[in-house]
Amino acid sequence: MTEKIAPLAPGSAIGILGGGQLGRMLALAAAKLGFKCHIYCPGHESPASQVAARTTIANYDDERALESFAKTVDVVTYEFENVSLAAPAILAKSKPVRPSAIALSTAQDRFLEKTFLSRLAIPVAGFRAVQNETDLQKAVAELGLPAVLKTRRMGYDGKGQAKIERAGDAAKAFESISRAPAILESFVKFDREISVVAARAADGAIAAYCPVENIHKNHILARTIAPARMGARETEHAAEIAGAILKSLDYVGVIGIEMFEASGMLLVNEIAPRVHNSGHWTIDACSTSQFEQHIRAICGWPLGSPERHSDAVMDNLIGDEVQNWRTLAAEQGACVHLYGKSEIRPGRKMGHVTRLKPKT
Amino acid sequence: MTEKIAPLAPGSAIGILGGGQLGRMLALAAAKLGFKCHIYCPGHESPASQVAARTTIANYDDERALESFAKTVDVVTYEFENVSLAAPAILAKSKPVRPSAIALSTAQDRFLEKTFLSRLAIPVAGFRAVQNETDLQKAVAELGLPAVLKTRRMGYDGKGQAKIERAGDAAKAFESISRAPAILESFVKFDREISVVAARAADGAIAAYCPVENIHKNHILARTIAPARMGARETEHAAEIAGAILKSLDYVGVIGIEMFEASGMLLVNEIAPRVHNSGHWTIDACSTSQFEQHIRAICGWPLGSPERHSDAVMDNLIGDEVQNWRTLAAEQGACVHLYGKSEIRPGRKMGHVTRLKPKT
Repeated sequence: MTEKIAPLAPGSAIGILGGGQLGRMLALAAAKLGFKCHIYCPGHESPASQVAARTTIANYDDERALESFAKTVDVVTYEFENVSLAAPAILAKSKPVRPSAIALSTAQDRFLEKTFLSRLAIPVAGFRAVQNETDLQKAVAELGLPAVLKTRRMGYDGKGQAKIERAGDAAKAFESISRAPAILESFVKFDREISVVAARAADGAIAAYCPVENIHKNHILARTIAPARMGARETEHAAEIAGAILKSLDYVGVIGIEMFEASGMLLVNEIAPRVHNSGHWTIDACSTSQFEQHIRAICGWPLGSPERHSDAVMDNLIGDEVQNWRTLAAEQGACVHLYGKSEIRPGRKMGHVTRLKPKT
Repeated sequence: MTEKIAPLAPGSAIGILGGGQLGRMLALAAAKLGFKCHIYCPGHESPASQVAARTTIANYDDERALESFAKTVDVVTYEFENVSLAAPAILAKSKPVRPSAIALSTAQDRFLEKTFLSRLAIPVAGFRAVQNETDLQKAVAELGLPAVLKTRRMGYDGKGQAKIERAGDAAKAFESISRAPAILESFVKFDREISVVAARAADGAIAAYCPVENIHKNHILARTIAPARMGARETEHAAEIAGAILKSLDYVGVIGIEMFEASGMLLVNEIAPRVHNSGHWTIDACSTSQFEQHIRAICGWPLGSPERHSDAVMDNLIGDEVQNWRTLAAEQGACVHLYGKSEIRPGRKMGHVTRLKPKT
């Protein structure tokens, strides 16, 4: 199914749920195309509201604020997948919300997500739902060890995860995630972590950026290398997987798909129904960034070219690393991006820096 | 003389006089580096205020509003050179204003500008000050015809200019510019119009983008081709001229210098003490755009690299041309920039589009 929608004219207003760095970079890209942004988030002085025409400061469960917000915009999107489904449901009563609730609900729950992928015959690590100790014992017996126990919902940057090496550690792992509804996954000994950032337009057209290689530190993305150092066949296969997921979700917007490459095979680890940290390099290395691509898609515009003019390495600036801004500012050719966050906290994404190289 | 200044930390506030597209693109670049912008302009819903953390809507001669504005920012810059000198003078009492009033006053008056350039031994067209008919007759006799009569102040996009082909046309030309204080310039039969966009940092470092070639329609910039199709010697000479001007003005920020290439010689036509329309291509073709470069300079940061990763052709979208946005949106590889102006007027700059090519 594809939606037939007229492209939104420049000057239209885009509502964005969430005021973080992704919302900020979406707002900057929207401005480039002549759109106005209205940010909705609970926090004051958010990174996104500093660059938006308008901000509503309210909680995501404030029905009246959501309804007023919807009246002022022409389309709504979101910068994070852990927004309660109630908010987009309220907004969708009066304005289009893209990507749709189907993508959101699928990505919010690791068990639904893995089940969805399996039904598409997309390889994933072995997985079992875990509601209680009995489930967990059974899952450990069936999948073997090591395995990773993850909360079904609300996990990010390694939060809500525990690795189980020995059967005796299972109970402790379950305790460590507060016995929340969970999923046990076989531990994948991967050769590489890669991701594909891709977009689908309202008319069904799909455009994927080249697969990139990701290096995590403490479960947080530290570096993205574009393109990923992998063969032509795997590169093509990664894009095919992204295309199948986008189509099956009848998706409109940009999606981030994290994969493991293990012994030449690609396993999908996670899908993020939004612009993705591993796509930040596209701001500096492509004529259409992932942020502009998302704005184009949700506004019913044709997708831009995902071709890169340069290869790139993107490094996140996490916590204190942003204190290094003087050195980065002086580095010729370093593309420095800072998010306007006043408070530095350990693990907090404060900015990123992209270094370009001639295209291979 | 060079200023020793500590670089402004990310999170600092930049005040921008003027709310047009140049202010808008400056604010977008400032956001990339983690700065907040405060726009000062008389108009509501200005292009710049749509992407800034804060806006003061007041006239440029509102002393109290200017003083309040200065209190909220760490540095002040401007997006247009025809701001009254009184405004920066008030602001400079409490906060640094960059570029300084010297550059502004020189560029605001065509006669002072040409006199300044002549004293640097930079070639310019023959020129004479014209206060009255007697001056005009004398100037025509001395410079010969054809010549161009221009108001000394407030001219842009061909406004306040009249070409004199025959001596009998002189009086009519003077009438057509309302007998304002003027300058008569020899008409230059140029082979090409070029410009150099360059920057000078507070520590005296200079960085110039490659000279570009400009094509005007109805006295308004229509197309910029980067790099200009000219020899290595002229290219180097153009950068030297820019460097001499920046140094002599003890300039901090980005400057646009328009030149004619005539029989292999470069004549400077005009200097604009601000980011320049002929530098818009740098957003998409360089790792540091002219807007980021200006922000870096006025904030005391080291300059970024002016190297381009791609060649580029930039076309302005003037007036009704912006109605063509659907076609441009669908053109693969076209970098579309729209300025958020709600009203289309003939001759109004509504946006621009840049097309990249591999670097030559």
